[in-house]
Amino acid sequence: MTPNLLNHFNEKGRARMVDVTDKDITTREAIARGEIWMAQETLDLLSQGKMTKGDVLAVAQVAGIMGVKETSRLIPMCHPLIIGSVNIEFKIDHVNHKIDIECRVKINGQTGVEMEALTGVSIAALTIYDMCKAVDKNMVINNIRLIRKTGGKSGIYQREED
Amino acid sequence: MTPNLLNHFNEKGRARMVDVTDKDITTREAIARGEIWMAQETLDLLSQGKMTKGDVLAVAQVAGIMGVKETSRLIPMCHPLIIGSVNIEFKIDHVNHKIDIECRVKINGQTGVEMEALTGVSIAALTIYDMCKAVDKNMVINNIRLIRKTGGKSGIYQREED
Amino acid sequence: MTPNLLNHFNEKGRARMVDVTDKDITTREAIARGEIWMAQETLDLLSQGKMTKGDVLAVAQVAGIMGVKETSRLIPMCHPLIIGSVNIEFKIDHVNHKIDIECRVKINGQTGVEMEALTGVSIAALTIYDMCKAVDKNMVINNIRLIRKTGGKSGIYQREED
Amino acid sequence: MTPNLLNHFNEKGRARMVDVTDKDITTREAIARGEIWMAQETLDLLSQGKMTKGDVLAVAQVAGIMGVKETSRLIPMCHPLIIGSVNIEFKIDHVNHKIDIECRVKINGQTGVEMEALTGVSIAALTIYDMCKAVDKNMVINNIRLIRKTGGKSGIYQREED
Amino acid sequence: MTPNLLNHFNEKGRARMVDVTDKDITTREAIARGEIWMAQETLDLLSQGKMTKGDVLAVAQVAGIMGVKETSRLIPMCHPLIIGSVNIEFKIDHVNHKIDIECRVKINGQTGVEMEALTGVSIAALTIYDMCKAVDKNMVINNIRLIRKTGGKSGIYQREED
Amino acid sequence: MTPNLLNHFNEKGRARMVDVTDKDITTREAIARGEIWMAQETLDLLSQGKMTKGDVLAVAQVAGIMGVKETSRLIPMCHPLIIGSVNIEFKIDHVNHKIDIECRVKINGQTGVEMEALTGVSIAALTIYDMCKAVDKNMVINNIRLIRKTGGKSGIYQREED
Repeated sequence: MTPNLLNHFNEKGRARMVDVTDKDITTREAIARGEIWMAQETLDLLSQGKMTKGDVLAVAQVAGIMGVKETSRLIPMCHPLIIGSVNIEFKIDHVNHKIDIECRVKINGQTGVEMEALTGVSIAALTIYDMCKAVDKNMVINNIRLIRKTGGKSGIYQREED
Repeated sequence: MTPNLLNHFNEKGRARMVDVTDKDITTREAIARGEIWMAQETLDLLSQGKMTKGDVLAVAQVAGIMGVKETSRLIPMCHPLIIGSVNIEFKIDHVNHKIDIECRVKINGQTGVEMEALTGVSIAALTIYDMCKAVDKNMVINNIRLIRKTGGKSGIYQREED
Repeated sequence: MTPNLLNHFNEKGRARMVDVTDKDITTREAIARGEIWMAQETLDLLSQGKMTKGDVLAVAQVAGIMGVKETSRLIPMCHPLIIGSVNIEFKIDHVNHKIDIECRVKINGQTGVEMEALTGVSIAALTIYDMCKAVDKNMVINNIRLIRKTGGKSGIYQREED
Repeated sequence: MTPNLLNHFNEKGRARMVDVTDKDITTREAIARGEIWMAQETLDLLSQGKMTKGDVLAVAQVAGIMGVKETSRLIPMCHPLIIGSVNIEFKIDHVNHKIDIECRVKINGQTGVEMEALTGVSIAALTIYDMCKAVDKNMVINNIRLIRKTGGKSGIYQREED
Repeated sequence: MTPNLLNHFNEKGRARMVDVTDKDITTREAIARGEIWMAQETLDLLSQGKMTKGDVLAVAQVAGIMGVKETSRLIPMCHPLIIGSVNIEFKIDHVNHKIDIECRVKINGQTGVEMEALTGVSIAALTIYDMCKAVDKNMVINNIRLIRKTGGKSGIYQREED
Repeated sequence: MTPNLLNHFNEKGRARMVDVTDKDITTREAIARGEIWMAQETLDLLSQGKMTKGDVLAVAQVAGIMGVKETSRLIPMCHPLIIGSVNIEFKIDHVNHKIDIECRVKINGQTGVEMEALTGVSIAALTIYDMCKAVDKNMVINNIRLIRKTGGKSGIYQREED
């Protein structure tokens, strides 16, 4: 592996925060998705009462948005960023008894926001786990992935999914 | 759903941090695991040079341990805890080209550390993604789950896996 | 003023974090209240749609609980504490068009949680302001006060209110 | 209430961080004020000795300034901002035995700093409470409000006060 | 080097947070000291006006105390701790034109507070640098060291100094 | 001392965060250095085994980089900044049995990054202390200083060293 491939390392092979001061300030967006799988009965409990379902996902939504803002403090080599917008959406999948989580992050800046979107999904999923773990400890967080990334010199990334 | 089932809600169905002041202080431990899947070639790059491989996982290890300590600040209803020990292990799986992550957290306290262990795995996985994303944006974080939990009134939880 | 009256100062009159290591570990609780006043029409907007009203206060509730956990990082001389429970309640007062906020914090520890309860009320009120400021910048946060405090050597404090 | 009125919600009525990436970068300033009321005798104690009075308010000043910088981590839908300046002033009001707190925040950015100024006042007031609570638990934090806001498309906001 | 000598490493030579859950809860104290050297003229400016000198050191004192509370979030393998007391003292040394900083930290807990005391000194020194750097960029932070440590199984550590 | 000399104070002699909103956005860089002295035998232990030496310094490197990002939250009057790059280098000095630490920070912004570079060195040094303190409590952190600073109206600062 040449040092330029994994650019988070300096010439001595030690971790560094890469220099982005020469990059253009452009509008960049990233979309990440993930899932939390649970027992059918847990999902039923969660979606039964409107009030309470609202609350589980409302708490997870707030946590996910706040988690996006913490990204550069959690992921060692991430740059601090002036996040421009965050939106998180949940879709309840009754067939597979899971909740799909999508996080979109947008910025005018010199570096992308993939890590922010992925972190937002992760924290939202962990929060759902925390809120429901009294009834179901078997839940699994799955398939956290980058879906799309635009802006910046490297161009558009679009994951191919069926 | 009765309110006592999802105990993170008060009588009005609003989120609260549950009262643990009456619970016994016992030694509690939780083990969580997760995986990050990547292209064969990314895993090869990561494991090729000892120095550099060491560093990717060393950074992820530090991030995961520090992430464990941030849990109560990230997950809204989690209690602040006096974490007693954290250990994170990585196992490179060349057959499935993924890295298995395990996080163990131990505490003397009044509430369990499942969320801490799950958060440690998540932050370690996100850090690996961040360190390698320049060569592979298709990586997927998968199968984040609780393996075992001991201590406290609810007894031992052991996930059944094949 | 003798130094012992304002005990957050050392012999040289400089700020310090007072020593609590000799105090007993007891169950301590504090209740604080406060209000946010707004235009009648703002309160109507907020309470009109159940969904949306739910969300404004749900966000404020999460923010207040998380704010409680940040107290020792915000208030310089506060001790870090192992918060045992937090509960926040909102009461919509249509007559005076204000929202009453109450925060209860409980702990087993060596020092009280007044500051935690007061901080929880403050952050919840600021969050309501933030969520509604697009329609009403004249809102006022008022009457943040300690209502009751129990546990510890200094005994019970109960505010006298009509 | 139409969703565009309370713009912190997405089309599904869930909380989001609004998109500011299209807004102009302009110089924006906000001024907030608040008060902490206390017993005459508490205020006398606080202002008696120059050294010590200096210290109570000096600690509150540092706490308020640091609190301004924490705003986006405390208030869920607030954007992270590159604060350009913060100034906090205290005025001791011996007639009404209260301390008036004013916080001014300035920025070059895409969104206003009202929440930052209000948070600075709140944290300064809470810190004064903390520093004096050993002699007076009846103190009340009052009248936290936005006084003036300039910059940005929405123009000047000036509170009308007598 | 055997793994037990540098006990912050697990059997694979990777960093871990050592297990303290079996250690006794005892009262532990640590004292650390350090110095910031500056031009004679900078020290004169700093100590000339009582008000302003008060403020430079008052800000540094608050920063140092708050820094102590951040230790476990800054130093990766440090345990979160329930700090019981913090005191910081400054001594102006006009002969060598430096300021001596001492930080004492006390706790009832399962592990020592050396890192907390050393961090408190470091943050206080950095804050003095920041407050005075407009007039003197040549200042040097020196001689940050542990002076004394008591409590815990390893007994008393007392640095020998002349 | 006139207030303009120590510009972190307002007209009343109280601390403020100075206004940088009128300053030009330029590329700014700062280099700081420091040292941690230890017993010959501690340094030998640290550098004996490649894996483990790698790990002590790898952990310190991550901690230093993350510490740079925390600067504005630790040093009260520091501005939040969009750090553009961070690099930390260690040099083992077997003759004087110390480790030299250098931290470079770069930014496009309205204010310099001296404090960020100095903080990065300090946190890296404290982390080395923490990782080795089980075998050597006599280590001393020394000579933390600014080496070079470029960008901004005040021009280039270059420390003169032999």
